[in-house]
Amino acid sequence: MKTSLECMACYLRQALQVSRIATRDQKLHLAALRRVAGIIAEIDMDLTPPENSVAVYEAIAEITGCTDPYLNLKKQSNLEALANLPECEKKIATSDEPLLTALRFAIGGNIIDYGAMHSFDVDNAMMGCLDSAFAVDHSAELLQRVGGLGKDFRVLYLADNSGEIVYDSLVVRQLAAMGLSVTVAVKSGPIINDALLADAMACDLQDVARIIENGTHCPGTPLKSCSAELLQEFNRADLILSKGQGNFETLSETAAEVFFLLTIKCSVVGEHLCQISGTSVETLSGAGELVLFHHKGNKQIDA
Amino acid sequence: MKTSLECMACYLRQALQVSRIATRDQKLHLAALRRVAGIIAEIDMDLTPPENSVAVYEAIAEITGCTDPYLNLKKQSNLEALANLPECEKKIATSDEPLLTALRFAIGGNIIDYGAMHSFDVDNAMMGCLDSAFAVDHSAELLQRVGGLGKDFRVLYLADNSGEIVYDSLVVRQLAAMGLSVTVAVKSGPIINDALLADAMACDLQDVARIIENGTHCPGTPLKSCSAELLQEFNRADLILSKGQGNFETLSETAAEVFFLLTIKCSVVGEHLCQISGTSVETLSGAGELVLFHHKGNKQIDA
Repeated sequence: MKTSLECMACYLRQALQVSRIATRDQKLHLAALRRVAGIIAEIDMDLTPPENSVAVYEAIAEITGCTDPYLNLKKQSNLEALANLPECEKKIATSDEPLLTALRFAIGGNIIDYGAMHSFDVDNAMMGCLDSAFAVDHSAELLQRVGGLGKDFRVLYLADNSGEIVYDSLVVRQLAAMGLSVTVAVKSGPIINDALLADAMACDLQDVARIIENGTHCPGTPLKSCSAELLQEFNRADLILSKGQGNFETLSETAAEVFFLLTIKCSVVGEHLCQISGTSVETLSGAGELVLFHHKGNKQIDA
Repeated sequence: MKTSLECMACYLRQALQVSRIATRDQKLHLAALRRVAGIIAEIDMDLTPPENSVAVYEAIAEITGCTDPYLNLKKQSNLEALANLPECEKKIATSDEPLLTALRFAIGGNIIDYGAMHSFDVDNAMMGCLDSAFAVDHSAELLQRVGGLGKDFRVLYLADNSGEIVYDSLVVRQLAAMGLSVTVAVKSGPIINDALLADAMACDLQDVARIIENGTHCPGTPLKSCSAELLQEFNRADLILSKGQGNFETLSETAAEVFFLLTIKCSVVGEHLCQISGTSVETLSGAGELVLFHHKGNKQIDA
């Protein structure tokens, strides 16, 4: 998905938000916004929005001197999600469709996103995600695909945000319990509130999956910049699950088959998903719709 | 009121909106946004937001070749308001406080604003403005001041937008009927949907008031750029009524006494008004609150 004209104002909005978290110095806020405006004036519209956001966040980090402004919020998101975990596990244990229930928690957990233009209420989202209808619902296809995978088949799970990754661990544990070999990919360096190695470890994912870094500090999975390790997993996986908007934005045109699990928090992403999924445009306004979308790809390999 | 950091993203949002109205050529939309981003990178934060918007809208006009993109919307706003006028006049005629009722329509009509970050429903606003409580209510002071003015005392009425100016005419007619000498100031050239001479004439304001241009195509009244004619009226007026956010933003720190009549459509303007009026910050969120604020000034003359 290419960067849209709407993204340009959104980068400035994000720049102000992150600058204020990074420092209290208002002169640095202004300096960061001026620099980001300069970046936007020269932006490459053929790149995806997450790819363009890398330069934006790098500039802010350089000016404010803070490379991981969301560190505290990320830790707090993890702790809050960990506190909810026993309740979620109880729901899964008593569910007729334990994997689907876990998937619902993972998709609902994607509300935790400090980059997107929305305020969010995690507790509300987690309460609602078990009952809300999916705006795009290919869950039956996903359950069927998982059911068809034999022992030691490979699943690549592209994680998105901190906090959210704790809910992802519910899905990963279900898949691991079925005997599947799960690899979870996180980002290699801090970007917004995206999950890093430390966040995967915070919910003990290393006990049930292999954790790899994707080789970037882009809030998505831009294959042409990713590590050889990520590409190897991407290419040999029997099933790819992708979490969140950033991974969707960077992979929506991949030739590979991907199941996209996300909450829609931006109308531009909503419109793009409508286009490629054939969903009616009214369905995805960007107001927190839950999506499980089967991107069929063309079975070729990207990289 | 100085330009705030929040204004920077808002300029890009406005630039996209107006570019799309001005032309269908998507390359020109991108060119306009790039140019505006460059302007934002160098913006003078000591100017008021309407002053900074002049360069933004000039750049878009130059790139798209369209100097008055809101022309059709302005005409349509006038026609819609003219259609509502008989009903408003009936309400005023049967009101115990005809001037206050007219003021309520004028303040409610300020919802018609294509620059501010909000969508609006004029009919709803006009239905509600008679009964809604003012978030800041200095109407008693204004009515008392008007009651104390003798025949031929001078009133300067700073108009804001097209459509809205039709509702303003209700107030102007009330004041003229009291024997006051009313001057209505409009902008000298097209800027967003701000009222021009043609819009004042569309509701026959010239029959009851003197119409002057303020000498700018700024969506406000920046005194240091205004015409000698505007400054003369500003300095000799016995009463100044100022409509809308842009006039408030450019005059909020004037030494003159001004009654500001507006609907708050932006949280930055809302916060500034809270600060200078001593209103609690929760009161003015920017979600369409009606305001009649008495800025006492210090009785000196600005220009």
